[in-house]
Amino acid sequence: MEDFRYYTPTRYIFGRSAQHNVGKLSSELLGSKVLLVYGQGSAKKSGLLDQVENSLKEYGIKFFEFGGIKPNPADGPVRLGIDLCKAEGITGILAVGGGSVIDTAKAIATGVMYDGDFWDFYCGKAVPQRALPIGVVLTIPAAGSEGSGNSVITKEEGLVKVSIRTEYVLRPLFAIMNPELTYSLPPYQTACGIVDMMAHILERYFTPSKGTEVSDGISEGLLKAIIKEAPLVLKHPDNYDARANIMWAGTLAHNGICGCGKIEDWASHGLEHEISALYDVAHGAGLAVILLAYMRFMLKHKPERIVMFANHVLDVHGEDEIEIGEEGIDKLERFFKSIGMPTTFKELGIENPDIDLLVKKVHQNKGEVFGAYYPITSQVSREIYIKALKGN
Amino acid sequence: MEDFRYYTPTRYIFGRSAQHNVGKLSSELLGSKVLLVYGQGSAKKSGLLDQVENSLKEYGIKFFEFGGIKPNPADGPVRLGIDLCKAEGITGILAVGGGSVIDTAKAIATGVMYDGDFWDFYCGKAVPQRALPIGVVLTIPAAGSEGSGNSVITKEEGLVKVSIRTEYVLRPLFAIMNPELTYSLPPYQTACGIVDMMAHILERYFTPSKGTEVSDGISEGLLKAIIKEAPLVLKHPDNYDARANIMWAGTLAHNGICGCGKIEDWASHGLEHEISALYDVAHGAGLAVILLAYMRFMLKHKPERIVMFANHVLDVHGEDEIEIGEEGIDKLERFFKSIGMPTTFKELGIENPDIDLLVKKVHQNKGEVFGAYYPITSQVSREIYIKALKGN
Repeated sequence: MEDFRYYTPTRYIFGRSAQHNVGKLSSELLGSKVLLVYGQGSAKKSGLLDQVENSLKEYGIKFFEFGGIKPNPADGPVRLGIDLCKAEGITGILAVGGGSVIDTAKAIATGVMYDGDFWDFYCGKAVPQRALPIGVVLTIPAAGSEGSGNSVITKEEGLVKVSIRTEYVLRPLFAIMNPELTYSLPPYQTACGIVDMMAHILERYFTPSKGTEVSDGISEGLLKAIIKEAPLVLKHPDNYDARANIMWAGTLAHNGICGCGKIEDWASHGLEHEISALYDVAHGAGLAVILLAYMRFMLKHKPERIVMFANHVLDVHGEDEIEIGEEGIDKLERFFKSIGMPTTFKELGIENPDIDLLVKKVHQNKGEVFGAYYPITSQVSREIYIKALKGN
Repeated sequence: MEDFRYYTPTRYIFGRSAQHNVGKLSSELLGSKVLLVYGQGSAKKSGLLDQVENSLKEYGIKFFEFGGIKPNPADGPVRLGIDLCKAEGITGILAVGGGSVIDTAKAIATGVMYDGDFWDFYCGKAVPQRALPIGVVLTIPAAGSEGSGNSVITKEEGLVKVSIRTEYVLRPLFAIMNPELTYSLPPYQTACGIVDMMAHILERYFTPSKGTEVSDGISEGLLKAIIKEAPLVLKHPDNYDARANIMWAGTLAHNGICGCGKIEDWASHGLEHEISALYDVAHGAGLAVILLAYMRFMLKHKPERIVMFANHVLDVHGEDEIEIGEEGIDKLERFFKSIGMPTTFKELGIENPDIDLLVKKVHQNKGEVFGAYYPITSQVSREIYIKALKGN
């Protein structure tokens, strides 16, 4: 087991009608002038934004609406938000939405406290040391940003999608999570979220570290719960318990608890980011395709953790390691298909992906070699992208 | 799934030589005058206390030694500690030890901030609202107090052992956890700790709540990891990874992550507390005996979760539910025996337990009916104690 530090000072308020706590929590933790960041209108249409604003008003909190944040959130709105915060003397940021909204809020929160351009944090020129306090009302369980210290922003110029990670500076101080708010999520988006959270767990499960039974056990338990609840939540979008389990799993998948004591991989996310940046596909759908290709490659080159996953999570048993691994990956593929997820580039809607360009971009962004479980050289990333062409 | 709040603002510093961070963390989080609480001398003998004191001195922190805390910690030292804190203007409390030392530190920390007698918190007359900041250097993984908001103190007059629980007021601000510090723990104490952490998970696993797949999955993963690591850690007391997994499992067993969204049971702890209070046996050893008796009773009266445990954690399969449950409990019994734990009153060294008195005391302390999984009336507690006489 590797040495680690783990600090998650996020207050989770989870359950029915939880959003009505937002005024009280904001007045305690965000101060009196709040930037209210949200997405492209669903929170407005559903009436959630009204509920949030009424709750803020009840506690005398002044707020400034900052809506219109799009998926794969861009650097442009972050700069506008930072300017607005500085001009208005904002004391805290409240994100109402999913990963894109929260990640934008985080970038603004730390950008405000920094003299240079906020992109310095994302291109590695600086490390976030401080941020305005952040609160979240979560509407899309997937990215896990409500509990993580991470943020992913895409620089529009050159389509560079970059993820940063802090131990705790960018962790929200509170996350309000009402599973009922996710009843209206369409099936495709729900399924993309499910794959995304599974990937967050698997990126930590695929580790070179030894002696990590506790973190492995937690990861396996979470993965099993997600696989059990996924068909339920798709068949009955208003099944409270199924939505609740998926929502809470999404947080735990990415708040670090699955990675304690491990060197984490993050190769699949690296490989996928280029696909969603170039072809504008949903991150979760891209991950379904890449995860399968990645696991098929690894089964040939470093099978241990692939076989362990098949065995412990998918209950595949047998004599031969490779057969267990193959049956596991096939089972995962069938699971992805059963929840409406693509398993090849073609099913993702990309008939002829430009693999040369994908390989070039991914190594431009991630370096000559990346990944911790197995070194992803340009030859390896090419092989994985090629495997994603044809699937099984 | 039940609505829940979850907030764990403890910084975990986990790994080799972690104790050398204590000065820096204390200066950031405990202030300049620290009460240094420790046990009966093992921290002194091992040299750990010197290391801690040197690290505190390096950061200019004034400290007051407050040692001699015994297992099943008593109210007397708590009152002395509170007086000392008030007299010296203590700013924070550092606990170096295991559950007894940490629980004493917590009782002092909240007692200092209260005008009445601290026991008011334990007898239910008041609720802790504030506490001095608490830090921990953990030496015994078992009680999970390093990450919990709980504290157990025994009132010497009348031998009343009471547990209190706060959402976060009594959670330590930091917990320094170096598995190497546990190499010297004797096998019996190590095994007692293992049973204690398993019980902390099972008290949350035995729930009447439905739709708790995520918390169940995490609990099952943790239990499997503990059962896998236990023989290793007993055979090779200086196996770093095995010690590390047991240590981290002990924290997660009791920091609340296994109970999110659940009504928790705590019947076995209630039943056991009377045994260790009356007969002065180790809490973990008493729990081994009670857990088996409890599960045997429940298998007859409410088998669901007992069968689920046998099936998911101990991999017992079959046609008949009750047979699965029976085989599961037998397997657990064999596991307890294999790590040197007692499984009956007799093996616990209590030839003729006063069952009438145990039943009387437990309902005096816990009320006419307690437990959430199944109502523990005086008839039920009697039956469970009787089952603990003969075992299987």
